[in-house]
Amino acid sequence: MVFSLIAQDARTGARSGKIETPHGAVHTPAFMPVGTQATVKALTPEDLTSSGAEIVLCNAYHLYLRPGHQLIKSLGGLHRFMCWEHPLLTDSGGFQVYSIAANQKVTEEGISFQSHLDGSRHLLTPELCMDVQEALGVDIMMCLDECIPYPASHEYVSRSLDLTTRWARRCRERSRGRGQGVFGIVQGGMFKDLREKGVSDLACLDFDGYALGGLSVGESTPLMREMVEHTAPLLPPDKPRYLMGVGTPEDMVEAVRCGMDMFDCVLPTRNARNGMLFTSFGRIVIKNARHRAEDIPVDPQCSCYTCTHYSRAYLHHLFSAREILSYRLNTLHNLSYYLNLVAAMRRALAEGTFADFYQGFYAARTSRDNNHQAYGIQ
Amino acid sequence: MVFSLIAQDARTGARSGKIETPHGAVHTPAFMPVGTQATVKALTPEDLTSSGAEIVLCNAYHLYLRPGHQLIKSLGGLHRFMCWEHPLLTDSGGFQVYSIAANQKVTEEGISFQSHLDGSRHLLTPELCMDVQEALGVDIMMCLDECIPYPASHEYVSRSLDLTTRWARRCRERSRGRGQGVFGIVQGGMFKDLREKGVSDLACLDFDGYALGGLSVGESTPLMREMVEHTAPLLPPDKPRYLMGVGTPEDMVEAVRCGMDMFDCVLPTRNARNGMLFTSFGRIVIKNARHRAEDIPVDPQCSCYTCTHYSRAYLHHLFSAREILSYRLNTLHNLSYYLNLVAAMRRALAEGTFADFYQGFYAARTSRDNNHQAYGIQ
Repeated sequence: MVFSLIAQDARTGARSGKIETPHGAVHTPAFMPVGTQATVKALTPEDLTSSGAEIVLCNAYHLYLRPGHQLIKSLGGLHRFMCWEHPLLTDSGGFQVYSIAANQKVTEEGISFQSHLDGSRHLLTPELCMDVQEALGVDIMMCLDECIPYPASHEYVSRSLDLTTRWARRCRERSRGRGQGVFGIVQGGMFKDLREKGVSDLACLDFDGYALGGLSVGESTPLMREMVEHTAPLLPPDKPRYLMGVGTPEDMVEAVRCGMDMFDCVLPTRNARNGMLFTSFGRIVIKNARHRAEDIPVDPQCSCYTCTHYSRAYLHHLFSAREILSYRLNTLHNLSYYLNLVAAMRRALAEGTFADFYQGFYAARTSRDNNHQAYGIQ
Repeated sequence: MVFSLIAQDARTGARSGKIETPHGAVHTPAFMPVGTQATVKALTPEDLTSSGAEIVLCNAYHLYLRPGHQLIKSLGGLHRFMCWEHPLLTDSGGFQVYSIAANQKVTEEGISFQSHLDGSRHLLTPELCMDVQEALGVDIMMCLDECIPYPASHEYVSRSLDLTTRWARRCRERSRGRGQGVFGIVQGGMFKDLREKGVSDLACLDFDGYALGGLSVGESTPLMREMVEHTAPLLPPDKPRYLMGVGTPEDMVEAVRCGMDMFDCVLPTRNARNGMLFTSFGRIVIKNARHRAEDIPVDPQCSCYTCTHYSRAYLHHLFSAREILSYRLNTLHNLSYYLNLVAAMRRALAEGTFADFYQGFYAARTSRDNNHQAYGIQ
């Protein structure tokens, strides 16, 4: 796995780059659509590539439990299983064990838990975590980390951070497939000194990339952004920097400004299924009665399949009737919005116009009152 | 609307033809995917055309209630609303009022009922039924008919048939849009003499096509087929003949043999969402454990998107995980199967080999025991 920087903004930490993997290149800043169970909900691989996706995130925890990593390996690996020939990253499962599984217990050895599907008992060790991702054959593997509740005391977070570092070392030392990269995950809660320690502990292990974990877990947006702003510049500059589980369009723009390169979030896909659509001028809730008879696209400035084919009135009807096509068209639009947003940042960085991009991004939003009448934003 | 016969089988009633409508041609025998609420569940128009669909069936009852035919008209008509530029047929709503609505009451004037959505009271008259379909701008409109329970007495069916005929006359006399064709619906329950009377009463009204209604409503398959076999040859030969709501692949083949031209049924789409898939050698239930690790397509002889991209193991996983993509891929496959089946019948009729087609169709099925091991059919 090779990462090369393409451009850096003169006035901020923002940068663009390219990650080369066995399944092709990922241009950063990159947004990774979430395909938890080996499918980005409602979309085919063709939908994803035509929306501009270069990499998809799947989840090792879910795939380990169902259908099983050994089964996927026997079928030729995750790429072939889900018919996605481009890069794949899997989350390690630490967060899912924390948030979905039952009766978790963390020990030095790993995390024991009960499956959310059938209650079966499992022990997720750093080694198993790597083995699962190796069997899946993904391009980027994530270390096992301990996710902690928010808020948590300095003492608790400090002890947990040390455990995460020991697990990271065990992950680093585990053998893996040819060309598979491993990213370390920086924890440290909302404590700047612990985030600093997390970075320096992990940097020694020479990972292929570094992620910020344990953010967007219930803290306020200003606090989350403060932690990113403090920690991002400390991460090794010659490696990809991944902000896990974040976030809103504004969160991504701010994090890119701080020097982060990669993002994943269920927001565009989950909100699509709930009828909340992102646009260049704000958000619209398609089920609202105001859209019932509107013969305009969701976002007149958007060139996605949904906006070039269908009216808000039709999308309102599909959502009201709970039609499956509603989820698909809404998801296509929201993902296109996210993927266009990172593409616009890449272009601005290449052209040295990131400041203009940044200003324009917020200007479209602050003029939302003017657009209110015309575009029906909420 | 012009119908022309292309080929007729020498030994059976089977025939192929072409219906020309303002939105293009429909080649018969034709299967019409069901898009009740202005969408074939889970599919885009591109999915439909690439599967071989030339015409889609929507439902006047559903669209009248939601979002409303006047709204659709104000948005440019149903074709534009749902982004389908090919022919559309709407069912009149008689069957839906009978099967879904509450507190129906049939009078000479029409059918009064309460909406299944909000309980609001409506009176569906033959004139309103035509006006709704005129506003939608569909290519083929269906007359309002009275649907009757099965079984029903000769006396009851006879009285109902006369009412349906009087309603058909009122539908025929209602003004409609340029190029819009109207089909009459032959009722008559399971009584051959009443089916005969239904045909002769409607034939006088010179409809653009004739449908057999009130079949596949609970009677046995042999009885249904007996009614089709008796009635189909009586229908005017120079007009399209439409068997409503039918049926299985076998039902379609048998009905084509009797001289029927058009079909619609929720079976391929609904069963897809329940995990039941049609193949050339029988049916498979994708959720069954036997398919969990199978690295072969649903039907190795099928060239649909699903079969050319995904294994049964992946489809089994998607169905088990209740993923939206499961509904989409299964629907694509089943519709492709149905549309390929009518296409194969059209080809066989054009080439004068319908007898060979017919034999081969059943041979593939009767050899299912041999295929059982290899293909996992049920």
